[in-house]
Amino acid sequence: MRVAVIGVGLIGGSVALAARARAGAMVTGADTPQVLAEATARGAIDRAAETVEEAVGDAEAVFVAAPVGALPELVRAVLRAAPVDCVVSDVGSVKRALVAGIEDPRFVGGHPLAGAETAGVAHARADLFEGATWYLTPRPATSGVLYERLHRLLHALGARPSAIDPATHDRVLAAVSHLPHVLANVLVAQAAATLTVGEQPLPATGPSFRDATRVAGAPSAIWTDIYLHNREAIIAEIDGVLERLRDARERLLAADAGAVSAWNDDAASDRRRLLERELVGGALFELRISVPNRPGVIAELALELGRVAVNIADMALYPASDMREGVIALWIAGSAEAQRAQELIAGLGFPVASP
Amino acid sequence: MRVAVIGVGLIGGSVALAARARAGAMVTGADTPQVLAEATARGAIDRAAETVEEAVGDAEAVFVAAPVGALPELVRAVLRAAPVDCVVSDVGSVKRALVAGIEDPRFVGGHPLAGAETAGVAHARADLFEGATWYLTPRPATSGVLYERLHRLLHALGARPSAIDPATHDRVLAAVSHLPHVLANVLVAQAAATLTVGEQPLPATGPSFRDATRVAGAPSAIWTDIYLHNREAIIAEIDGVLERLRDARERLLAADAGAVSAWNDDAASDRRRLLERELVGGALFELRISVPNRPGVIAELALELGRVAVNIADMALYPASDMREGVIALWIAGSAEAQRAQELIAGLGFPVASP
Repeated sequence: MRVAVIGVGLIGGSVALAARARAGAMVTGADTPQVLAEATARGAIDRAAETVEEAVGDAEAVFVAAPVGALPELVRAVLRAAPVDCVVSDVGSVKRALVAGIEDPRFVGGHPLAGAETAGVAHARADLFEGATWYLTPRPATSGVLYERLHRLLHALGARPSAIDPATHDRVLAAVSHLPHVLANVLVAQAAATLTVGEQPLPATGPSFRDATRVAGAPSAIWTDIYLHNREAIIAEIDGVLERLRDARERLLAADAGAVSAWNDDAASDRRRLLERELVGGALFELRISVPNRPGVIAELALELGRVAVNIADMALYPASDMREGVIALWIAGSAEAQRAQELIAGLGFPVASP
Repeated sequence: MRVAVIGVGLIGGSVALAARARAGAMVTGADTPQVLAEATARGAIDRAAETVEEAVGDAEAVFVAAPVGALPELVRAVLRAAPVDCVVSDVGSVKRALVAGIEDPRFVGGHPLAGAETAGVAHARADLFEGATWYLTPRPATSGVLYERLHRLLHALGARPSAIDPATHDRVLAAVSHLPHVLANVLVAQAAATLTVGEQPLPATGPSFRDATRVAGAPSAIWTDIYLHNREAIIAEIDGVLERLRDARERLLAADAGAVSAWNDDAASDRRRLLERELVGGALFELRISVPNRPGVIAELALELGRVAVNIADMALYPASDMREGVIALWIAGSAEAQRAQELIAGLGFPVASP
């Protein structure tokens, strides 16, 4: 199959690598000369095209991998130049506005839920989409043949294609991705304001603050587009949060211990429920381990678990303020694996608890 | 010195261990028989007391380490039983209400900013307070001699005692600890509501959601007290957040790209500023590394950095949804150390970027 990738960054580059390695495709890339040189050197593309028209002229499938704001114009340019029997998709994280404006039967909006923590073809990998949900937003006008081709191709890339209507997609993403970014931004702004009143020296801000604000101020070059293009769904989430915050405020103001506990306990069960659903392989179990924070301790733990093939799904280190001691939280998928991990870690002599 | 510790959990147990090991103190503990047996077995206490009165009868310094709601009564009981020449302090994370109600010259409110991620004397350690800020809230009535004794003792435990007025303390903690907990609770509740509308299968919630909600639903046995006792300061922070959310909402509604970018860029610089201040040893530098998520990779990275004594201040693993590949973020203190770490990691063959 002949595949064209417009924009060869992390996502586009990974599509290119996967299409070549897993689908035996011949891949043409379009981007700046510098990026194309890097993509060629990495073995991501067979051919570098100088223009979109040249890239898609004989393509059977095209992926447009550009920032959300650039997509409408770019997708239209691709559709003008692509053959009549060519499926055209994109990888943008907002779908409604884009999809609504394009009635072409060759176009299927798309969004892989995969890697956006780094940028650039240097970080691209052929298995970025292995096991990843890849949302597709077919419309009544969409060609069934072309949709099926795209579906098969995504499956070959390792992804799990899943059809979703654009409005639901945007609402879900607003809740689990865009809103956390908004709240992180608001939290740092609020803390900065509170902590700079008066002359009081600042305390260590601590792990809860660090975790809660990890995504604050994500690159504006990408995020301003996302915020604006999904602003309706994000505003709906903000409105929900405003209401929930006012409710929490009421419970505090009333000094109602039962109401505050219930609110807090609900959050605990909501989070457990949401994160359990996240994994195909079963619930995540958390272990908390007190350790000296010297180099080598994480190595020791990871090696010991690695030796018996218990994999760490997620980890977080909460250092004491001197950075010499701390607590490591590990999330292990599967009850038996977590049990085994806990026994092994206890055997190493570290206090370990499963909260 | 004779030290009594009322409540021998993580914090009380660590005070006991540190007082014995670092200040040569004779330590008496008061708690349930089961906890006292564990504390004795761990070498945390010299003597187990059956009652508060017995524990503090001949003490020169007393630490009350109980949940915030139990403190007023417990501190008063201690003051009734303690000698006239005995300093009495507590370790509660809310100070204003407690301190306002106690005029005794022997009492100094206190709060060490150290380890609350685990509970129980099993996780106690003699160096929990090494380098940690330990807030003290002396009042005009406080005995200068007793304050000085407490200050010296805390210094011996490894802490950095720092006087602060109770209202400022509570406001700072509301901003950097209590508010993040409130927002995490609200975020999971909002996401749970959005994601359970309709029949649409849920997506992977992703690393930004996981980080932002890590402290959601922290144990009500501890947190309901904190929420209620610091509710004035927390409500003020919530009000600040409500205003900032309404402002963000306005910028989105107006679809003003410049205003949204400015808001987002401000968050980036606020966070950098806040986290830079957190460390004594200089700014944290972030590295992002693309790695296969197999057991042993973190070991390899940690070992390599450990070998040259570059310590990892914080780390986070963002796995792809199949858990086989991912991005590791490492935070390294100091520009030179981070530079060195980046070169070493690149030498191992992993794509690494400093965002």
